[in-house]
Amino acid sequence: MAVLEAKIVVSPSSDDGVFETGKFEVTMITVGTSDVSRPPVELFIVAPCEKGTYPPLLFCHGFMLGNNWYSDLLCHIASHGYIVVAPKFYGIIPISITEEVRRAAQVTEWLPAGLPLVLPEKVNPDMDNLALAGHSRGGKTAFALSLGRTEQKPRKKKARSVRDVVVDVTQPSKFKAVIGVDPVAGSSPSNRPPPQILEYIPRCFNMSIPVAVIGTGYGNQSLGVLRPPCAPDGVNHSEFFNESKPPASYFLAKDYGHCDMLDEWYANMMSYMCKSGTGPRDLMRKSVGGIVVAVLKSYLGGSEDDLNAIVDHPATAPITLDPVIYVKE
Amino acid sequence: MAVLEAKIVVSPSSDDGVFETGKFEVTMITVGTSDVSRPPVELFIVAPCEKGTYPPLLFCHGFMLGNNWYSDLLCHIASHGYIVVAPKFYGIIPISITEEVRRAAQVTEWLPAGLPLVLPEKVNPDMDNLALAGHSRGGKTAFALSLGRTEQKPRKKKARSVRDVVVDVTQPSKFKAVIGVDPVAGSSPSNRPPPQILEYIPRCFNMSIPVAVIGTGYGNQSLGVLRPPCAPDGVNHSEFFNESKPPASYFLAKDYGHCDMLDEWYANMMSYMCKSGTGPRDLMRKSVGGIVVAVLKSYLGGSEDDLNAIVDHPATAPITLDPVIYVKE
Repeated sequence: MAVLEAKIVVSPSSDDGVFETGKFEVTMITVGTSDVSRPPVELFIVAPCEKGTYPPLLFCHGFMLGNNWYSDLLCHIASHGYIVVAPKFYGIIPISITEEVRRAAQVTEWLPAGLPLVLPEKVNPDMDNLALAGHSRGGKTAFALSLGRTEQKPRKKKARSVRDVVVDVTQPSKFKAVIGVDPVAGSSPSNRPPPQILEYIPRCFNMSIPVAVIGTGYGNQSLGVLRPPCAPDGVNHSEFFNESKPPASYFLAKDYGHCDMLDEWYANMMSYMCKSGTGPRDLMRKSVGGIVVAVLKSYLGGSEDDLNAIVDHPATAPITLDPVIYVKE
Repeated sequence: MAVLEAKIVVSPSSDDGVFETGKFEVTMITVGTSDVSRPPVELFIVAPCEKGTYPPLLFCHGFMLGNNWYSDLLCHIASHGYIVVAPKFYGIIPISITEEVRRAAQVTEWLPAGLPLVLPEKVNPDMDNLALAGHSRGGKTAFALSLGRTEQKPRKKKARSVRDVVVDVTQPSKFKAVIGVDPVAGSSPSNRPPPQILEYIPRCFNMSIPVAVIGTGYGNQSLGVLRPPCAPDGVNHSEFFNESKPPASYFLAKDYGHCDMLDEWYANMMSYMCKSGTGPRDLMRKSVGGIVVAVLKSYLGGSEDDLNAIVDHPATAPITLDPVIYVKE
């Protein structure tokens, strides 16, 4: 059995505020590549249990991080009525970003036919409202995919399975929004692996979908000579926001670090690699989750009220968001 | 004689468009430190000849470039009714940026009493409308001065002359606008000499005056291994604009290089150091001059029409400006 459903893990809250758990009970599902739905890579999916049609969010994990290391965050998002699909791009041995973007594109292609097969009964994806997000290097992957930068060379051998299909993702419009969670494009402006999506020109990203960028205040800080910053200046959230066309929103989690939105155990582990904040990490997860939900509600057919509320009153968030910027046009 | 007036060099044009020479005849004046006005450093001044009161613009030259290497550009600006004061921060041996900012602050302090002494008869500076600009490293100097980042350590010895006066420029409001002409903050985000004004957070510059940034499309390109980019990614125009609060405008001279606004002879010389554009450089000088004039007219008591016209119709400029961005609030 390649589909593994987990127990329902989120206690739904009566409070529908974006920073609190939403009203939907959720289930976590792991889908292996041997499943009948034939996903191109293993997937970690979090979805509401209640019957209904929900917008899906493709979530790209960070470099050398597990796709299921974000379960608290993804459950938070799903509890507000979203189906989160987090591919596992690789195991122990990482792949190039170009290959990662290609696999993310393959998962995108798989979604319409494959996702309904693995969801709970009467739970369906609203494929007209698909969004994209990613953390760290996965944030770059998300932007690259939005920009159609799959850079797939034609293969000489015949396609044998869905994993070998040459994907042409030149239609960024298949996504309704893209969200970067402390995205990172390389180790410095002069050391950026392909695809080099940053151009160091304001608002140059050639896509028309709304963008949200969540940065961390400690991401650009080093833990020592042998542990350089995880989100270095010049290739981090600030530049991703700068190159985004309106509508674009920006939120800096001022007192938290690059991996503080991971599940607690993994965030602890990563605090030896990336400088971590001193505040409670559950507040960071709630905040990142709340921002993502507010952004999705704004652009995926819901209300703009929650996003506008955060922008107008950042102090309503559980952590310090400073600055918060929303360039609407 | 420490004041040297040059001949009138600009033929005034009947066309008052910002990209053409303005209606005022101008004169170039070099003021040495031995002049009775006691300027803290040697100054190159370009001013209208006609009696009147004109807003002054303090212009900071680039690294290892002469303050009088911009005479065409500065004459263009002055011909529209501005008094341009370009300090010579050093001779053959460069000084630190911190010291450069300190000298720029000293010149600012000198202006109210000193400038009227060296201007043509009945030509006066309107000190309530003082603006600031700089090219390359001088762009950083201009921003640092606007931000009050003089970082002046108290001197133990007694002040003996105006050059030794400890300057406290913590009042950015003495400037009405700051303009960066292809500003550069260092060689990379991890190699930025003090004062480190960039923080890699959007809109973090702690000042309230309007900002304009003019970038060059070729500034981030290398001429070879031994000749790295003159305005590298991550420390150039793009980041300066990103960190500026509204109102902030941005103009990219797409097909020109970092030194293409210098006088022709010097621009030719610098083309061996910094990649130059292939188009006529007089068009670049007219364009940079026109943008500066439009910005000054907007914020120094004139009309916003010219700036809005460039923003709404960039194709009216003599060169390709792409992108042009104006964040008003």
